[in-house]
Amino acid sequence: MQTEDFRSAAHEIVDWIADYLENPRDLPVLPDMQPGDLVSRLPGSAPEQGEPMGRILEDFHKLIVPAVTHWNHPRFMAYFPSSASPPGVLGEMLSAALNTNAIVWKSSPANTELEMVTMGWLRQWLGLPEEFFGIIYDTASVGTMHAIAAAREMADPEARNKGATRGLTLYASQQAHSSVEKGAIAVGVGRENVRKIPADAEFRMRVDALVEAIETDRKAGLKPFCVVATVGTTSSTSVDPVAEIVQVAEKYGLWCHVDAAYAGAAAILPECRWILQGAERAHSLVVNPHKWLLTPADLSAFFTRRPDILRRAFTLVPEYLRTSQDGKATNFMDYSIAMGRRFRSLKLWFVMRSYGKEGVAEILRRHIGMGQRIAAAVDADQRFERVSPTPFSVVCFRYKGSDEENRALLDRVNATGKTFLSHTELNGRFVIRFAIGNVGTTQQDVDEIWSLIQQLAP
Amino acid sequence: MQTEDFRSAAHEIVDWIADYLENPRDLPVLPDMQPGDLVSRLPGSAPEQGEPMGRILEDFHKLIVPAVTHWNHPRFMAYFPSSASPPGVLGEMLSAALNTNAIVWKSSPANTELEMVTMGWLRQWLGLPEEFFGIIYDTASVGTMHAIAAAREMADPEARNKGATRGLTLYASQQAHSSVEKGAIAVGVGRENVRKIPADAEFRMRVDALVEAIETDRKAGLKPFCVVATVGTTSSTSVDPVAEIVQVAEKYGLWCHVDAAYAGAAAILPECRWILQGAERAHSLVVNPHKWLLTPADLSAFFTRRPDILRRAFTLVPEYLRTSQDGKATNFMDYSIAMGRRFRSLKLWFVMRSYGKEGVAEILRRHIGMGQRIAAAVDADQRFERVSPTPFSVVCFRYKGSDEENRALLDRVNATGKTFLSHTELNGRFVIRFAIGNVGTTQQDVDEIWSLIQQLAP
Repeated sequence: MQTEDFRSAAHEIVDWIADYLENPRDLPVLPDMQPGDLVSRLPGSAPEQGEPMGRILEDFHKLIVPAVTHWNHPRFMAYFPSSASPPGVLGEMLSAALNTNAIVWKSSPANTELEMVTMGWLRQWLGLPEEFFGIIYDTASVGTMHAIAAAREMADPEARNKGATRGLTLYASQQAHSSVEKGAIAVGVGRENVRKIPADAEFRMRVDALVEAIETDRKAGLKPFCVVATVGTTSSTSVDPVAEIVQVAEKYGLWCHVDAAYAGAAAILPECRWILQGAERAHSLVVNPHKWLLTPADLSAFFTRRPDILRRAFTLVPEYLRTSQDGKATNFMDYSIAMGRRFRSLKLWFVMRSYGKEGVAEILRRHIGMGQRIAAAVDADQRFERVSPTPFSVVCFRYKGSDEENRALLDRVNATGKTFLSHTELNGRFVIRFAIGNVGTTQQDVDEIWSLIQQLAP
Repeated sequence: MQTEDFRSAAHEIVDWIADYLENPRDLPVLPDMQPGDLVSRLPGSAPEQGEPMGRILEDFHKLIVPAVTHWNHPRFMAYFPSSASPPGVLGEMLSAALNTNAIVWKSSPANTELEMVTMGWLRQWLGLPEEFFGIIYDTASVGTMHAIAAAREMADPEARNKGATRGLTLYASQQAHSSVEKGAIAVGVGRENVRKIPADAEFRMRVDALVEAIETDRKAGLKPFCVVATVGTTSSTSVDPVAEIVQVAEKYGLWCHVDAAYAGAAAILPECRWILQGAERAHSLVVNPHKWLLTPADLSAFFTRRPDILRRAFTLVPEYLRTSQDGKATNFMDYSIAMGRRFRSLKLWFVMRSYGKEGVAEILRRHIGMGQRIAAAVDADQRFERVSPTPFSVVCFRYKGSDEENRALLDRVNATGKTFLSHTELNGRFVIRFAIGNVGTTQQDVDEIWSLIQQLAP
């Protein structure tokens, strides 16, 4: 592909992206397709000869776009909505072209240092103390796995050399993300050694039950080593009492990891600062700018007060990566399984500068306001009930009927293509989640979706 | 940021990228800076108010570009060179804007199905049989860790629930990548249980020594469970005898993982097909299109004949991710630690279609040809010696002098800014690596760099 062909194709793509960002509402949020539909429309083999970009782009528009679930659509209300904000997309364009790989400082100083700077900025926005070291991973699941590995390193420093020993036990609420269990499986702790601590009526970890579980395990000769507190659980966005959990962790010598992947962003707002109270004494914390901080995936920010332990768990420097800056510069590969690192901080730098702290705060406040309004609307309609508090912008509710009726209602709503909401289970019942978080979402979007739900209810 | 501001900034960025791709030689490959230089030039806090994009782009050009090590420069000859090829960059631009997240099939069918299709295409290019299941991870280190976890699942199915047991032993050559050891540490196997099998004079794993190590461990009551063969080692790009290693793995019931992160791409060439001979019987294999297949990072392709075991090691499906397509569609999150997955296959699809198999083959052949020419040039200059065979396009050589003289020579070459070469250690001696692999590299680039090395030699 010649540079001039690249230039014209890239300009064409930019216009498509600009139109897409400006007017996404023409597209159905969920594609109308069955498993295998796209596979069957694509050739079984790659071409022998190169094809012109025009044909590839034609297929992109004809085949790919209609098979996409539009996460960047303002009416995407499923899971945790995210935003490929305009400045974030610009940052990604430049990262792709530079294609730098920050294995060690020298292999691209800009990557390492901009990661340090943006993680420092974000740390300040979240109100965490300066001693927290920041590093970017691809996802919160991977971050949490690193936290569990660091916790293992603290509790059982021999594991790195001799292998994991059985008997380490880990604690998280019943409402914690599945990545906690997955991380425990991966590092060799084992699923049976993950204690799912009961939650209270508002889906927050019960600290009395945590203490009881730790005491029981200690009496049984097991070694409690890690507790994960969640700030914004995946089902209902409940907030565990971090300060109390940290206190328990301190008492029993456990590593405390805070999974604030979704809701951590809200700590930018003074009125939400309480959600991270106590986190300043936690060992590690993960928050995902690619969820609620306007940054395209993948960008998960991991902070730890004990980078020394994280480093001890993961450092291994082969000769071919030794440099004369070792000891003087940060080499992020020392703190992660992945050795290669693309230039992820660039898009975060674009986002943080383009919106500024107040700009971001204004958007989060708007989302929370819309969430509160939907919560009130649910409460006002006798046919529906909210099943959990709404601390942020995710509203969990159900139609007062059977699980089947709720499932059918959700399917009818999603089948319109006008929105995409997802579900969860709370107290053993099927629950619809109305999650607000895309940068383009307006009050009108939210109101129309609620009307749609009301219309389609039995 | 308004859409029209996005549109004009994006067009401006496209022109910069096109110029960058067209004429990168004006830029020094390695930046002239010390650790902390960029940090000191950036503000200590993010702005309160948003800033105009013009100012951000100005800083990008003034502060970031001069701090970048230019991996996409045709004279980048360090580590393993890579390419953000024009079609790859176009694919990334679209992925960033769509910002889809393929957690489960439904959460973006296009992501899942295009990943299946492109992994199938790549499998064919590599000559692997149809039974191989493909999945994209971010890096080969992460892929290798997943292979080791799957191997553990095969050998010790109780580990998932009960935790890892000690005594599992893993085998890889002394020349294997550090990610093998890191993966073993992460999953709880322990560093002491990684056997580094001696290599022969050409840096290939000695199969007799492998068998001996396995026998010794078995006699000691340990449980050999995994062997990693490398196709294209990081230091010298040597190729382990995969077919023989697979045979040993079969005999002793070990999982055989093939780390072909760098050189696997060459299997596209009929004359290089031998490098993966036997891999069709391996359990898993990793090859990085973001190394030598013209694709921007991050895109590491992982193939396994036993997706059932990989899935058993990693699947955990919370209620909120159950869908009516479960059982009918592939949900890639079942096969990985990371739950979120950005739309990585799109750029690979652009690259494979834009170049075609023959276009890619032609570029790889050109790189290998240039590598052979440098190898011959080294051989022809009495002051230098090659220290390993050159099966691909990485030439390992040294000035016939002390390690210090070689290190100083390398520093002088890199200080010119005209190229960036890295080093390694072979047979206990400092070795310079001349690695060719960027799409823009010409014979003239390579010849001029070799002349520069000759001029700067003592």
